[in-house]
Amino acid sequence: MRQVAIGIDIGGTNTSIGVVDREGNLLFETKPQLPTPQKRENPDARQDVSNQLRDSFIELITAEIRHAIQTVGKSIPELEVAGIGIGAPFANYYDGTMGITANLPFTDVVHLTGLIQAKLPEIAIVKVTNDANAAALGELIYGGGRGMRNFVMITLGTGLGTGLIVNGDLVYGQDGFAGELGHATAVPDGRDCGCGAKGHLETYCSATGIKRTVFELLAQHLNSESRLAKISYNDLTAKMVYDAAVEGDPLALEAFSYTGKILGRSLADAVHYLSPEAIFLFGGPTAAGELLFKPVRESLEHYLLPFYRNKIKLLPSELKAGSAAIVGASALVWKELDKIQ
Amino acid sequence: MRQVAIGIDIGGTNTSIGVVDREGNLLFETKPQLPTPQKRENPDARQDVSNQLRDSFIELITAEIRHAIQTVGKSIPELEVAGIGIGAPFANYYDGTMGITANLPFTDVVHLTGLIQAKLPEIAIVKVTNDANAAALGELIYGGGRGMRNFVMITLGTGLGTGLIVNGDLVYGQDGFAGELGHATAVPDGRDCGCGAKGHLETYCSATGIKRTVFELLAQHLNSESRLAKISYNDLTAKMVYDAAVEGDPLALEAFSYTGKILGRSLADAVHYLSPEAIFLFGGPTAAGELLFKPVRESLEHYLLPFYRNKIKLLPSELKAGSAAIVGASALVWKELDKIQ
Repeated sequence: MRQVAIGIDIGGTNTSIGVVDREGNLLFETKPQLPTPQKRENPDARQDVSNQLRDSFIELITAEIRHAIQTVGKSIPELEVAGIGIGAPFANYYDGTMGITANLPFTDVVHLTGLIQAKLPEIAIVKVTNDANAAALGELIYGGGRGMRNFVMITLGTGLGTGLIVNGDLVYGQDGFAGELGHATAVPDGRDCGCGAKGHLETYCSATGIKRTVFELLAQHLNSESRLAKISYNDLTAKMVYDAAVEGDPLALEAFSYTGKILGRSLADAVHYLSPEAIFLFGGPTAAGELLFKPVRESLEHYLLPFYRNKIKLLPSELKAGSAAIVGASALVWKELDKIQ
Repeated sequence: MRQVAIGIDIGGTNTSIGVVDREGNLLFETKPQLPTPQKRENPDARQDVSNQLRDSFIELITAEIRHAIQTVGKSIPELEVAGIGIGAPFANYYDGTMGITANLPFTDVVHLTGLIQAKLPEIAIVKVTNDANAAALGELIYGGGRGMRNFVMITLGTGLGTGLIVNGDLVYGQDGFAGELGHATAVPDGRDCGCGAKGHLETYCSATGIKRTVFELLAQHLNSESRLAKISYNDLTAKMVYDAAVEGDPLALEAFSYTGKILGRSLADAVHYLSPEAIFLFGGPTAAGELLFKPVRESLEHYLLPFYRNKIKLLPSELKAGSAAIVGASALVWKELDKIQ
C-alpha cells in the first residue's frame, strides 16, 4: 500500500490538481490546468448563476480528482488516497469554506470541503486553507521546516502572504484567517494597500512592492541613466528589476536594499511576537538570492532585540517553485493525519 | 481535599508570594514582601557573591512558601499544593531559568525551578514565565479569557508586556521568550527604547510612553496653560496625566488620544497576525477607562482589515490590580495540570 494525498490549488485564473506522496514528490499533475470560474463583464452576480458556476466547478474538480487517482493507480497498484488538501483564496480551515473575493464570480461563500466530500464520500479527509498557510505546511511536512516547531513562512508574489507555525501547527486563530503579516503596518501612513489601508508590509515587500519602490526612487533621485527609467509602470516587472540589479544598475540595487530593509524590520517584529526558529522566504523575488536575502538579513539583525541576534535562521524555502502550491495544499492531509493519530 | 497553587512574583524590588485556589482567590499573601536581591554600588558582580545572593534568595523564598502553606493549612485541613508558578524577569518556561537582567545582581542565569524543587521535592510542578505571560495565563484560567482559545493580553506599566494565547495555550516560541509586542516597531525611527532600538511600541504605549507623549505635545504645541506644563519630566506620572484629562485638560486628553491611536494600530497588526477573539488590556493606565479605551478602539477598528471590523473584543482585564502578579503566576500550575491530564 502506498499512501498519497491530493493537492489542489485554486488560483485566480487556473486551478491545479496533483497527486503527492508522503515525501512531497508530485506523482501526477492534471494538464492543462482547470480554468477557475471568472467574473463576467455583465453583472451576473445573481445567486442562480453563481450556484451554477459553483456546481460545475466542483463537478470539474471531482472528475479531475478521479482521473488523477486512476492515472496514478495504473503505476501504483495498491494506492491509498489519504485525503484532499486545498489551497484557495480566503479559505477557512475551520468551516471548509472559500470566502467571497473580488476576483471570483461566487456571490456567497463556497463550502468547498462539504461539496467535494459529497461527491467523493470515500475520501475521509478534505481540508482547505489559504495558499500561504498551505505553503507553510508544505515547508513543515516536506521542506526545510521538517522537525521544526516554530517558524514563519513568507510568500512573496503580487502580495505578501504568511503562514505561522507555532508549537508544530499552523496558527489559524479564532476565525481561521490568522497570519496576515502582509497587512501589518510597515510604514505608518505609507503606500496605499489593496485592502484600503496605508503602509502595509505587502505594499513594500512583494513583487509589486519592489516595482513601486523603483518608481519612488526614480521620483526621489536624479536617475535617468538607469535602464529602469526607460520602462513604464505597467511594463515593469520585479524580474526586470532583478536583471538590472545583477548588471549593477544602482537604482535596481537600491530597490532591493530598500525592500530588504523594510522586510527585515517587519520580520524582527515577527520574531518578537513569536520567537521562531527560522523564517523561510518563498516566491518569485527570492530568485534574486543574496540581492534580497543580504539586506533582509542585515535589517533583521539590526532590528532584533539583542537576545535574538545571530540566532534566527533566514532561509530560502525548500519548496519547488513550480509545484509548491499543489504540494503545499497536499500537506494539509498529512498534518491532519498526524493530528488524528 | 482542596487544591491550591503557590504564586510567586519576582519583581525588581520586591518578591511576593501567595496561595491561590482554582478560582483565582488569593487565600494568603506573605507580608511584608520579600526583598529581591539588589545590585550593589561596588562592582561585586563576582561569581561567588552572585551565588551567595542567589542561594540566600532561594532559601528565603522556600522558607516563605513553607510558612504560607502552613498558615493556609490551619484553616483548610486537607490542603493539597498542586504546584508553584513563578513570574520573573526574562524567565524561560522551557528550562526554568531567570535570565540575566540589568537590575538583578546575578551574574549567571538562575535555575529557579531546579533550585526550588531541590528544596521542596514534595511539590511536583514548579514552572516559571515572565510577568506578562503569567498575566495572560491568569486571564485564561481565572479571568475574562476563560473559555477563550485565542486572545492577546497587553500589560501596560513602565513598559508594555504581552502574552499571546493561541489554541488555548501560551505562545512561548522556540526560545521561550515569545510575545514581546512592546518591542515591535510602532513608529519607524521613533523614540529611543530601553533595548537600544527606536520607535518600539512600549516607548509610546505604557505609563512612561504617555508621559513622553505629554512632553512631545508640549514641545509641539503652544500649551503653556496646561497644568502639565508646570510639572518637570522627572515629576510627571501617568496618573497626573489621567487626573488632568479627567478635568478636561486638552493636552492630557490629546496625550491619551495619541497613545490610543498608536496602540490601536499596533493591536490591528496583532489581530492580523493571530486572529484573536479578544484583546485584554491590563495595568495602571487602564484605570483611565474610556479615556484610553475609546481612542484605542477607534484606532483598532480603523486599522483592521474590513473582515475583522466590529468582531474583536477590546476588554479590560478581569484580574485585580493588587494581586494580579501572584494570581497570574499561580495560573501556570493549573495550566500545567491541564496539560498533564
